[in-house]
Order: sequence, then structure tokens, then C-alpha cells
Amino acid sequence: MKFASLRELAAACRDLPAGDPAAAAAVAARDLTLTKPAGSLGRLEEAAAWLARWQGRNPPRLGRVDVLVFAGNHGVTAHGVSAYPAAVTAQMVANFAAGGAAVNQLARLADARLRVLPLSLDRPTADFTTASAMTEQEFLAAVETGSDAVVPDTDLVCLGEMGIGNTTAAAALAAALFGGGGERWAGRGTGMDDAGLARKRAVIDRALARHAGCLADPLACAAAFGGRELAAILGATLAARRRRIPVLLDGFVCTAAVASLARLYPDALDHVMAAHVSAEAGHRHLLAELALRPLLDLDMRLGEGSGAAVAVLLLRAALACHLGMATFAQAGVAEKPPE
Amino acid sequence: MKFASLRELAAACRDLPAGDPAAAAAVAARDLTLTKPAGSLGRLEEAAAWLARWQGRNPPRLGRVDVLVFAGNHGVTAHGVSAYPAAVTAQMVANFAAGGAAVNQLARLADARLRVLPLSLDRPTADFTTASAMTEQEFLAAVETGSDAVVPDTDLVCLGEMGIGNTTAAAALAAALFGGGGERWAGRGTGMDDAGLARKRAVIDRALARHAGCLADPLACAAAFGGRELAAILGATLAARRRRIPVLLDGFVCTAAVASLARLYPDALDHVMAAHVSAEAGHRHLLAELALRPLLDLDMRLGEGSGAAVAVLLLRAALACHLGMATFAQAGVAEKPPE
Repeated sequence: MKFASLRELAAACRDLPAGDPAAAAAVAARDLTLTKPAGSLGRLEEAAAWLARWQGRNPPRLGRVDVLVFAGNHGVTAHGVSAYPAAVTAQMVANFAAGGAAVNQLARLADARLRVLPLSLDRPTADFTTASAMTEQEFLAAVETGSDAVVPDTDLVCLGEMGIGNTTAAAALAAALFGGGGERWAGRGTGMDDAGLARKRAVIDRALARHAGCLADPLACAAAFGGRELAAILGATLAARRRRIPVLLDGFVCTAAVASLARLYPDALDHVMAAHVSAEAGHRHLLAELALRPLLDLDMRLGEGSGAAVAVLLLRAALACHLGMATFAQAGVAEKPPE
Repeated sequence: MKFASLRELAAACRDLPAGDPAAAAAVAARDLTLTKPAGSLGRLEEAAAWLARWQGRNPPRLGRVDVLVFAGNHGVTAHGVSAYPAAVTAQMVANFAAGGAAVNQLARLADARLRVLPLSLDRPTADFTTASAMTEQEFLAAVETGSDAVVPDTDLVCLGEMGIGNTTAAAALAAALFGGGGERWAGRGTGMDDAGLARKRAVIDRALARHAGCLADPLACAAAFGGRELAAILGATLAARRRRIPVLLDGFVCTAAVASLARLYPDALDHVMAAHVSAEAGHRHLLAELALRPLLDLDMRLGEGSGAAVAVLLLRAALACHLGMATFAQAGVAEKPPE
């Protein structure tokens, strides 16, 4: 999808397809016939119904699962907000290509297709303490890249990112959208010490002051504070909704990237599930703001789609039970007598 | 293992092998060289080190994973403490054999070997409101069955159970070991209504009064309140420790079954990880009493090893990362500069 302006993009966010309640209800109805107490598989049952609702298909399926990892570089790294040098973004993209990163192992285990999309790594975004990180057209181009990465006949899209400095961008964006400043939203990212964390908070607060004029416009905030990989994640999430593909979000950066959608249109993330809550400090607050309940809480804070890939395993478990279990009638098991 | 008396069993619980700190340290050392910020895979890194520590092997492996599901029947069901009739225990054992239960699907997905061991289903334990659920010899025979089910060259044992009425037995046992009565420990099990829950609480409180004389002896409590499947789980956990096999516990009933070991000897569960916290009310309290932090929190409350089988997927994810990832040196990725 191509958008000529933020206004056109905002309009597209307000006109989104709903899920298929009949498909979800059919899954729930079958679940009641399976040989287990009603509801006893908990969130696995919810997940199967959620897949059906957003795929518009009963039973749901997980034939093609894509893990899309978007990578970008950030001008704000000039302020020493990351424990790693900015060159690591491109080095990790090479590591993804060579199969050596965590997400490579996890995507293989989850039988998911990993695709890595670097976005102009040689042109970092502008330092957002002094200018908008992206121009409107740069932002829209990255949204388009993300949107185009979502292909038809995908059953589930998992979103991840790589970008040295991007927890600072994510924290600034979260602060812009929900208030609270660097104190509330900045965390240690890849492993900052106390002095680095203090710098990161100060950078965020300076940036919030610099862009005070645009804080009421969620998409303008995404362009001002975000990075190209965050913009692409927003675009992919929007495209998945329009194609009726459910989305698993990875960690803090991914969640911040799509938060603008929810600020524009409260139901815009109904097709999204949070794979996990990361150990990055702001993620728990942000999920709470968005009323997203994570599937996993494993103290992970790696990004690159790793938490989402792990959560695919849980969705496969949900589907295996839903599709494979015998019914009470088939198994000759007595049902719970009516109360 | 065969024990002639509770005293002999108690002695065996006090003389347990320690883990292998060198194997765990080797895993942790390699983890620091892999292409990710130190510690950023969180509990997945902990899990890999835990497997190595208790397997005494670096790197750890998950070649043979057993899911052992023990089944038993309970005299206390005469008091209407379950939403299902007692006949369902045997019906579900048949369902396991036919491949129709949740744990069949989950064990297959996790590439684990499911073994179901029914324990004298035609002879329910005695009603523990009026007598000890098991005699000393009945209890020890069930412990032996569990112990013998753990075979050498297993890399991980997952424990599960099936037994209509056994959340009442587990709650009574937890109350006996940690105090607090039916109010604190009883939950809705397979789906009791309010009246059923009140009955269950009252049954537990009556049983605690009946057995007041043995509450100071953890193994006597296990015989008085538990069931054969709980005793077998205790035996399997003990045998796994002696064979240096790490153990994944399923839900509330499994946790109650092994709690006696921890009351006897504080380190007795060091080789045990809690797969999940179930939605059964008492489980969270019990895990806290035992200082066990669950891997998953998915509102599951099915038993039959289902939560443990799902958690095997997370251990496979941990191992896939640990074994498959490139090091910083191999990938040419810059490490974090020293602070």
C-alpha cells in the first residue's frame, strides 16, 4: 500500500475490517466438545479462536507463518544511548542472513519463514533531539516497505526488529503517545549502565520538548521519534489487518511502533496479540496502556522477533489440541453432568 | 527403588546428589559469547544452564524426553468434590491410549514420549475424611511404581496426572504441609460450582482435623491425604534426582505431590522446574511456598501433563538458541565495549 500523506494513512487506519465472529464461535463450540473440562486449556483455547476470528477461517491453520524482521539505523545513537556501536545493526543483518542469530534458530524450530528487511541502513534517521527523525515522505516510504512485506495466503505474521538505538526511539514515541517522559519509558536496552540510562532519559525529555507541537498527532509522532523499522512494523500491521492475517508482536520496540495505530483508532490492534512482555522496563506499561496481555513472560529482551517466534510454538500447541483431540462422544468419556 | 518403610524413604530423601555446577558454568560461559546482549534470552538461558546442571552434561541435550502420566482414583469423590464422575479417570486413560487427549497432541508436538501408568484404578484410595487414604505399604508401592517409571538415559522427565477428585487430595495435602485449611487451598478443579467448592473446603477441613496427629510428618501426610498418582509422582521425582535427570512439573496436583520432599529436605526440588502456574486457585500459593517460578502462565488447568508438555517447547527453544547461534567472533559482530 502506498500513501501520499500522513492524512491519507490516518484515513486508512480508521477504516479497517472486523474479525469473523462466526469462525471464532465455531472454534469455541468445538472446544466444548473436546475431552477436557470447558476452558481448561486457558489461553490456548483463546488463541485458537483468535486465529479463526482474524483468518476468517474455521478451523484456523498455521501453514505459512512469516517472521518479518525490519532493521534500521538511528541518528540518536550519536548521544551514546546504546551499549553497542551503530555498526552492529548491519552486522546483525549479516548474521541473520548467515543463520547465526537467535531468531534463526527459533524460526526454524517454530517452522516459520524468516525474512529480514533492512531499511536504508547507510542513511540513519535524523537525530530526533534536533529534528524530526524522518520526513513525511521517508516515513511513508518505510510504512510502504512494511506493508508490502505482508503477502497474501500468510496465516500468521510475526513482527520483529533490529536497530541499535531503537529502544530510545521506542521510549520517546511511547512517551509522546502516552505521557510520562524518559523516567517512565526508558530502560537499559541492550545493557546500558546507570550513566547511560540517565543520558537516555535526558535525550528523550529533550526530544519531547523539541517536538511538543506534534504530540497530539500519533502518526506525526511516529515520524518524529520512530525509526524506519518502526514505521515498517506499523505498515505491516496495517496491511495484515486489511488482508485478514493475525499478527504476533515481539517486544517493546514493536509494541511502540504500532501504538500510534491504537491512538488513532481504538480497535486497530484487535488482530494483534502480544507474544511476550520483555524485560525492557517500559514494555509492561505500554502493554497495559494498549490492553494487550502477553502470552509469555520469560525476561527476554533481545528483539529481532525472538519472543514472537517462541510464541508461535504456543499457537502451534493450541492448534494441535484443537485439531487433534477427540470429542467426548468419540472417546466415550462422560461429560460433566448439568449443574 | 523399593522402600520398606516411610522412615527408609525419608532417609533416601535426605541423601540426594547435587547438580554439576561446572556444566552449568560452561553453558553460561558460552552464552556470553553468542551474538546477543548478555542475558537477553532471559529464562531461556537459565533453562539451558539448568538442564546442563542436572544432566551433568555440557552441552545439555533433549534427545529422550518422557512425559509420565500417573492415574489414580480417590475415595473422597464420595463427597461430591468433583464435577465429573469417578469413572472418567479410566475413560481418560483409554483416551490417552487412543491418542485423543490434549497431552497426546502436545507430547507429539514437543517430540516427547508419552507413557501413561494407571495405578489400581479399580481400588480407589480410602475416604481420607475417615481414614488414611493409603496404608504405608500402599503408599510405598505407588512410590515404587513412580520411581521405576524413570528410566536411565532419559534427558528430561515431565510429570503429569489424571484422577477425578485429586485436586481435593492435593489441596488437603498442601494444607497439611503449609497450613491454611480448605479456604486457602481448594479451587474449582474441573469446574465445580459454588456449592461444590464449599463442600470441597469442608471436606478438607474435616480431613485435617481427622489427621491432626500426623501433620508434622510430610511423608505420613502424603499417605494420609494423597492418592496413588501423587505418590508415584513423588517417587518419580526422587528417582529422577538420583539418576540426574531434570524434572518438569505440571500443575497443582503434581506440585502438591512433591511438596513433601521439600518439607523433608529444602534442596530436594532443586532439579525440578515448574512448567506453568495453573488457574487452579491453590497453585500460585504452593509455588510461592516452594520458591518455584513457573515458566508459563496460560490459565491452563487441565492436568494430564499438558502444561509440562507445552513447557518442553520452551526448553527446545532454549537449546536451539544455545546450540545453534553464532558467536560474536564467528559472525564478525562487535561486542559490547567494556564499561
